[in-house]
Amino acid sequence: MPTIIEALQYRYATKKFDANRAATDAQISELKQAVQLSASSFGLQPYRILVVSNPAIKKDLRAAAYDQSQVSDAGHIFIFAAKTSMSAEYIDDFIKMTATQRDIPVDVIEGYGEYIKGSVLSKDEEFIVAWNKRQAYIALGTLLAAAGELKIDTCPMEGFEPAKFDEILGLKEKGLTACVIAPVGFRSEEDNSQHYAKVRYPLGELFL
Amino acid sequence: MPTIIEALQYRYATKKFDANRAATDAQISELKQAVQLSASSFGLQPYRILVVSNPAIKKDLRAAAYDQSQVSDAGHIFIFAAKTSMSAEYIDDFIKMTATQRDIPVDVIEGYGEYIKGSVLSKDEEFIVAWNKRQAYIALGTLLAAAGELKIDTCPMEGFEPAKFDEILGLKEKGLTACVIAPVGFRSEEDNSQHYAKVRYPLGELFL
Repeated sequence: MPTIIEALQYRYATKKFDANRAATDAQISELKQAVQLSASSFGLQPYRILVVSNPAIKKDLRAAAYDQSQVSDAGHIFIFAAKTSMSAEYIDDFIKMTATQRDIPVDVIEGYGEYIKGSVLSKDEEFIVAWNKRQAYIALGTLLAAAGELKIDTCPMEGFEPAKFDEILGLKEKGLTACVIAPVGFRSEEDNSQHYAKVRYPLGELFL
Repeated sequence: MPTIIEALQYRYATKKFDANRAATDAQISELKQAVQLSASSFGLQPYRILVVSNPAIKKDLRAAAYDQSQVSDAGHIFIFAAKTSMSAEYIDDFIKMTATQRDIPVDVIEGYGEYIKGSVLSKDEEFIVAWNKRQAYIALGTLLAAAGELKIDTCPMEGFEPAKFDEILGLKEKGLTACVIAPVGFRSEEDNSQHYAKVRYPLGELFL
């Protein structure tokens, strides 16, 4: 197992995927588990993820992503979709799930549910969507690190038309909107960008 | 070295840190490197990070974080501060840095700089700040995963007053605003929450 630093050095935004090699079911399952374990505010995980491998859907998504080849060449496309709202019902369900998973009576943590409601339900929709998206980006960071450790390649992408993605994937009806995607697969030998030096601000500039 | 899944299972939002045990300089240096290697849109890293270990400053920060003990008990506080703007100058400097780090003439990638400018400079300030914050959240996800792998504890927190943090740390003058923080150190034996089962949506619900 590489160290996290080695994993992060291995990863890069893969521009050209090997269209003939997809991650295995076991690998995708491990990546899903990593995303599931990602941290989020209050633990609400206010996003859902679609993993698209169907070639016809990938073709449609590629057309809605400025024809970038990663979206059809990679075996799997992880689409992070933020919830477009936050409701008392969602928080109540979350509290019930917490009680179940911790095997405690729900009334022990009802106060926590009320605390969450007090913190977030007064916020306007724009704030909530932005907040939900930020939580999804933590999950994206978790996916990229996990994939790097497994030597699976990814390409985090914001260059797509969210409204079109939402339509193709039926996200709007589900109260979701696509906010960031990551094709997942393996780098093509032809992808020259794998040989480029990683560009990063020096520690002394990035850390004040 | 634990696997990434083991690392993510080990980590939890630490409520009570051991105030007598801080991460070593070598550990903090490794965490900084992980954050430095985190992905960001176009590679712009539109955020900066402060690592505060000074007890007096931690005390002030704690007061601006609803008196949560993590902010003074943890040895180090990572403060992610998003840039409050994006400018042609920043992008030009980024392109120059890219050319230097890749050892190529700057004119080879000037077109890429113009492309980035075309994508982002037309956006309004609100969009840019939200976008910059999202990039910082990828870095937060990277930090949490890296710390978990190193068996260092963290507590991602949004529960603080950004305006007060900005003032205490002089961030506004630097064109930055605190968006999320993570105390870094080691869990106290007394922290009961380390024994709670991790609560997560089942894979079948989280993944559509």
